[in-house]
Amino acid sequence: MPASSILSARDLEFLLHEWLQVETLTERERYAEHSRETFDAVLELAAEIATDHFAPHNRAADEHEPHVVDGKVVLVPEVAAALRVFADAGMTAAALPEELGGLQLPAVVNLAVHAWFQAANIGTSAYPFLTAANANLLVAHGTPEQVRTYVPPMAEGRWFGTMALSEPQAGSSLADITTRAEPQDDGSYRLTGTKMWISAGDHELTENIVHLVLAKVPGGPAGVKGISLFIVPKVLVGEDGALGERNDVVLAGLNHKMGYRGTTNTLLNFGEGGHTPGGRPGAVGFLVGEEHRGLTYMFHMMNEARIGVGVGATALGYTGYLHALDYARTRTQGRPLAGKDPAAAPVPIVEHPDVRRMLLAAKSYVEGGLALGLYCARLVDEERTAGSAADRDRAHRLLEVLTPIAKSWPSQWCLAADDLAVQVLGGAGYTRDFPVEQFYRDNRLNPIHEGTHGIQALDLLGRKVVADDGAGLALLAETIAATTQRARGTEWADLGATLDELVARIGAVTGALWADGDPERALANATVYLEAVGHVVVGWLWLEQALATPDQGEGREGAFYAGKRQAARFFQRWELPKVGPQLALLATGDRTVLDTSPAWL
Amino acid sequence: MPASSILSARDLEFLLHEWLQVETLTERERYAEHSRETFDAVLELAAEIATDHFAPHNRAADEHEPHVVDGKVVLVPEVAAALRVFADAGMTAAALPEELGGLQLPAVVNLAVHAWFQAANIGTSAYPFLTAANANLLVAHGTPEQVRTYVPPMAEGRWFGTMALSEPQAGSSLADITTRAEPQDDGSYRLTGTKMWISAGDHELTENIVHLVLAKVPGGPAGVKGISLFIVPKVLVGEDGALGERNDVVLAGLNHKMGYRGTTNTLLNFGEGGHTPGGRPGAVGFLVGEEHRGLTYMFHMMNEARIGVGVGATALGYTGYLHALDYARTRTQGRPLAGKDPAAAPVPIVEHPDVRRMLLAAKSYVEGGLALGLYCARLVDEERTAGSAADRDRAHRLLEVLTPIAKSWPSQWCLAADDLAVQVLGGAGYTRDFPVEQFYRDNRLNPIHEGTHGIQALDLLGRKVVADDGAGLALLAETIAATTQRARGTEWADLGATLDELVARIGAVTGALWADGDPERALANATVYLEAVGHVVVGWLWLEQALATPDQGEGREGAFYAGKRQAARFFQRWELPKVGPQLALLATGDRTVLDTSPAWL
Repeated sequence: MPASSILSARDLEFLLHEWLQVETLTERERYAEHSRETFDAVLELAAEIATDHFAPHNRAADEHEPHVVDGKVVLVPEVAAALRVFADAGMTAAALPEELGGLQLPAVVNLAVHAWFQAANIGTSAYPFLTAANANLLVAHGTPEQVRTYVPPMAEGRWFGTMALSEPQAGSSLADITTRAEPQDDGSYRLTGTKMWISAGDHELTENIVHLVLAKVPGGPAGVKGISLFIVPKVLVGEDGALGERNDVVLAGLNHKMGYRGTTNTLLNFGEGGHTPGGRPGAVGFLVGEEHRGLTYMFHMMNEARIGVGVGATALGYTGYLHALDYARTRTQGRPLAGKDPAAAPVPIVEHPDVRRMLLAAKSYVEGGLALGLYCARLVDEERTAGSAADRDRAHRLLEVLTPIAKSWPSQWCLAADDLAVQVLGGAGYTRDFPVEQFYRDNRLNPIHEGTHGIQALDLLGRKVVADDGAGLALLAETIAATTQRARGTEWADLGATLDELVARIGAVTGALWADGDPERALANATVYLEAVGHVVVGWLWLEQALATPDQGEGREGAFYAGKRQAARFFQRWELPKVGPQLALLATGDRTVLDTSPAWL
Repeated sequence: MPASSILSARDLEFLLHEWLQVETLTERERYAEHSRETFDAVLELAAEIATDHFAPHNRAADEHEPHVVDGKVVLVPEVAAALRVFADAGMTAAALPEELGGLQLPAVVNLAVHAWFQAANIGTSAYPFLTAANANLLVAHGTPEQVRTYVPPMAEGRWFGTMALSEPQAGSSLADITTRAEPQDDGSYRLTGTKMWISAGDHELTENIVHLVLAKVPGGPAGVKGISLFIVPKVLVGEDGALGERNDVVLAGLNHKMGYRGTTNTLLNFGEGGHTPGGRPGAVGFLVGEEHRGLTYMFHMMNEARIGVGVGATALGYTGYLHALDYARTRTQGRPLAGKDPAAAPVPIVEHPDVRRMLLAAKSYVEGGLALGLYCARLVDEERTAGSAADRDRAHRLLEVLTPIAKSWPSQWCLAADDLAVQVLGGAGYTRDFPVEQFYRDNRLNPIHEGTHGIQALDLLGRKVVADDGAGLALLAETIAATTQRARGTEWADLGATLDELVARIGAVTGALWADGDPERALANATVYLEAVGHVVVGWLWLEQALATPDQGEGREGAFYAGKRQAARFFQRWELPKVGPQLALLATGDRTVLDTSPAWL
């Protein structure tokens, strides 16, 4: 495959095959129909469709953002055309079981497939990925009838799906949602309320939209324990699967964003009387699973969605890096310090060390982020298909502790990669003649949605590392130690030793933070904790990559491996030292923020 | 004055009067007509005009960016209206001498005036500030006739000015400009060439535009030593000052930017035959000063422009911080950890420690940045008006070493403040319903223009700290030591001691980097050096502020001082430790970047 500015097929090959050995998954029953050839074929197809149908309208979808005409959401026509090609290629259902029309692809390969589309056009790719997440949730928690009714049309791309959690007054605080679901005699519910920030909440791309809606059944417990989950289709579905009456789900407005504009983002009214199915008030909804357990189901989906957000952030950073690299290799300007003869020809700017610094930093972020996302997806496969219950449980626990990092680290550092990409291009990067400014704007959403950066920090330090007496963190430490053990006696021993020391410090700091059992004090600096652990985790994955790299090879192959090793060295020498002051701050139990009165700001 | 979301009048009062004692400048002859009252009156007027005429169209100028209709650049009409009010209030000429129609304001007060307009509307404020910089350059280096012809119309806001340095093929590399200036028999020149990235390069706001253009006179030395500076008016000016024939300066295109959109940014053709003054080819230009010394004159202006860019970056960060603070105090969501009773009312989000962390960090960046900018402007006043030549020279040397920091540090950290502001607002911050996303986009220009971040690093480590056997750095160290000396025996002794240690390490690292006289190796990590020194300088200015803060006061005044002290502590505990790994990296003489082959990326 020729070199692409969207994503690096060579790097994916390295990560999937040379490092993660994904071919071994075909030994598992679930993936037995697959082979390295089928994995590679679907990846190549993804790259082709992403290149030919997604990337070309990325700018157009940004310039002509979704708008409402006669009550309908209008998108640039290329979106529907691209999604038709995507669905026809079976991409929506790539990870679904075969009996539901899916390709039954491993999660790790599926995530690599996603990365191609996210890097090419994050806005357009959101529609099918939300749909796939919706379908996955129904497969896991819906009744057989619900699955039969809603999943195949989504798998075929005829219907799309959404997740409707947030509300105008609630934001990150789902305990405060007020959408009500009144039980009806026929077992269905009638919903009333308003949902905010609903991506893909309304459009004309498909004939139906399946909303998964969080709401409270009157009389239930207060707070998050009283939240239930409902299927609320835009158009009601008859027993034969045919579309019937319009449900009372009405677009109340579009959000106009800084970036990520291709994905329409909506305010939706449920049961406000815009339509009254059967002549009665309320939007018709169907309970998923049991009442009051809605948040549990949603979080099951959300963990995968969070890894997906991390990979999306990585993909946006990755394509930014590749565009900057391409520019730096072709744009000539200035001369080397050693020979500042003004009569000499200018050199490509990649020859200037400061430009290489920016590119190498970006490379270490985006390849590190991709390794993190794929590693987590590989754990999803282990969690599902490992041979022993102990191995599945181990994968589950490790995934629990890694998920907030898989979401937040790329959202921070691959955005930083796009910031560096803008800087490499300079004034050109600040104009809309080049795509990097859009990647930068698009990527800025990722530290916000699917749980903000600060929410991920509370999740990691407040839940994940304390659960089961710290078993998750202990398992992470053990897993890292297995890698550093392999590094002993190699040229990477020093990186391994640094990681060992940092992991030990994280363990000590975690204990110290929780020593007095005061969650307010323990969690006051949770974000610093998240960022420190995140950097150590990515440092470990750089060691993993370095150890998977043969110290040989010539030409392009040799340069590829040399680049991997150099990026690992960069992360070791330039990035990991940043963790030192963070852990030192945490170790002091710093109260600066906690003791700051709002009146002082 | 009521609290504003544009800038803090109380903070400016503290910085200008309680800390920098600007009233003492009125003891100098140049500023003898002024008093605290006149300073405060002009600041109050600036705040009023910024609030009433600049801020209201900040979003409109972003949404309706400059565009060309029938060959003319069209802006939203509010821009011209605001600039009329601005000019009529004498703001363009605020720092010019009285005999040229100016207010003869000290640079430090003038910069505070600028900050109000930059925070309110960076795009509109650029027109008069470029004009003022242009006029200042002519006052310093033009002939009396040139000054008489061009400065008063600019001071009155009837004409605007530009700086035309860059070219499409040259970017940061001015040595490679190819615009030619052919001397004519009458002493004028004829220019031909194309200039890129020219802010305010064309518009209908004024009846004339005075371009200051860098060009090469044939036969001069190669590279930067062959660059001369020319006045090239859009419309030629008769001896009586009346406008005459159109000069051959033609708009070739507009750049469409991510932000900063209100300032039109142009590609300009000089002498390409769009007009032919007197029927002869070439744009008519008038030499400023001597041939081949153009870059020296331009850099004289550019140093002040760089401080101005830093203050602009600070202003954008400051208003972002204030908007986020306002949102955090009024938006309710969630509950304190200590009392997670779901039935309790939600609290303002400023009550959540992670939100306070973001606000306190932003506060430490924007107030630190403002202190840095004003300190440098105060040095400009010293350089101009101090009583002894030794004091003027001292101010000049200190300013030389601080200028790259005054430009780059706020461009990095006050952009970070806007990033935090977006994060505090969450999803809302990502929408165009709130202004913070625009501040974030606008501010992203600042690490690029007027010398990129990397260029500033080369300036600091490659020129400023090595000039005169390191006299500039020694003077900076001495100046910081004078502050840490005052901190001894106070509650701030530990911050002083930390700064002493860091300054010593910077001195050692600087020596080590240059020890073998290999500029390529010394400068390979110049950006890390710039960032480390910048953080230490701002840490020092936080100590300065803390020492100027009475540990007393009640109510709002007490809270103001407590906030200053807390921000100083934050910078001490959270920010200064980041410098440790940077200096450690520099001390190893790290070659990771230098040894990276472009083929490995």
